[in-house]
Amino acid sequence: MTQALDAAALATLFTEARSQNGWTPEPVSDDLLRQVYDLARMGPTSANCSPARFVFVRTPEAKERLKPALSASNVDKTMTAPVTVIVAWDKTFYDKLPALFPHADARAWFTGSPEVAHETAFRNGTLQAAYLILAARALGLDAGPMSGFDKAKVDAEFFDGTTWTVNFIVNLGHGDASKVFGRLPRLAFDEACTLA
Amino acid sequence: MTQALDAAALATLFTEARSQNGWTPEPVSDDLLRQVYDLARMGPTSANCSPARFVFVRTPEAKERLKPALSASNVDKTMTAPVTVIVAWDKTFYDKLPALFPHADARAWFTGSPEVAHETAFRNGTLQAAYLILAARALGLDAGPMSGFDKAKVDAEFFDGTTWTVNFIVNLGHGDASKVFGRLPRLAFDEACTLA
Repeated sequence: MTQALDAAALATLFTEARSQNGWTPEPVSDDLLRQVYDLARMGPTSANCSPARFVFVRTPEAKERLKPALSASNVDKTMTAPVTVIVAWDKTFYDKLPALFPHADARAWFTGSPEVAHETAFRNGTLQAAYLILAARALGLDAGPMSGFDKAKVDAEFFDGTTWTVNFIVNLGHGDASKVFGRLPRLAFDEACTLA
Repeated sequence: MTQALDAAALATLFTEARSQNGWTPEPVSDDLLRQVYDLARMGPTSANCSPARFVFVRTPEAKERLKPALSASNVDKTMTAPVTVIVAWDKTFYDKLPALFPHADARAWFTGSPEVAHETAFRNGTLQAAYLILAARALGLDAGPMSGFDKAKVDAEFFDGTTWTVNFIVNLGHGDASKVFGRLPRLAFDEACTLA
């Protein structure tokens, strides 16, 4: 029997949560980042393929490596965020399938088709990125996801010689409420949904 | 100040939630589906682009239209689920940007590049799909996402002559606990994450 969440929890996750543009100096511990990952990894992926990979950037040195790849409007908030997560996926995620999905030869579903492997990694790695954002919020953190950056530069700086590739980036920390933008409108049910 | 969730809420969302393979007869009201969407739409997307579209399939007639597209192993659980959501995106999502992101000409970022438009729709539409799964769980529903189906058949049957295209499908309802598979392993922190 699944227990629904109360209004305060829904506010933390959805209705009051906001993408952040500034941060308080309150730090985020590595232990909390591990708790965020431990929740996010439980979300569903196709055949449990779990293609997402996460680089938690929290030292000034690593932030400086990231800085040249950022769009101008994303530099200040990223350099001051306690943590910036480089959300990536592993292009050879299927090599983990003998352990992750042991009751079928799931690896063979992907090794024959780069297109299927790419689409599966992008879709499921992105689902896991959303689980990470909501897991961070669930543990009391604020998030600021961004796709305004140079993917080739991030791949060259962080993933050269590996099978990982960047999807997007997410700042984590405790948001500075004074820097949040006004809430933008969302599509009404009848604009985005149909009942069949 | 963001309030963290308690252990029961984390269980509902992540640690005890499971992809479902069977369903109790308990129905899901259209009002509850609207509540799920109202939460899911609040999650962050790039420039608030909100490309996801959702078809809530709950009549026997609409289920029969979906059936020929399903992989054999997904037929029974989908035909018996109270609701099957066809998660789609709008290929011309950018036409809503003058309303969704009114302070810049964001539409122009996408009309010149089909590749950028596709990647943005796929990434952000998939983030919204994850928000929908977790919103459903937050409201006491169980989910069963699936990518085992024929996308071309779904597009031809449901989206012919429109700008919508299917991403994946998600059963919603109240799960039959006796039909849940054993929990599969997840990657350890050190297999999927690095600290930088």
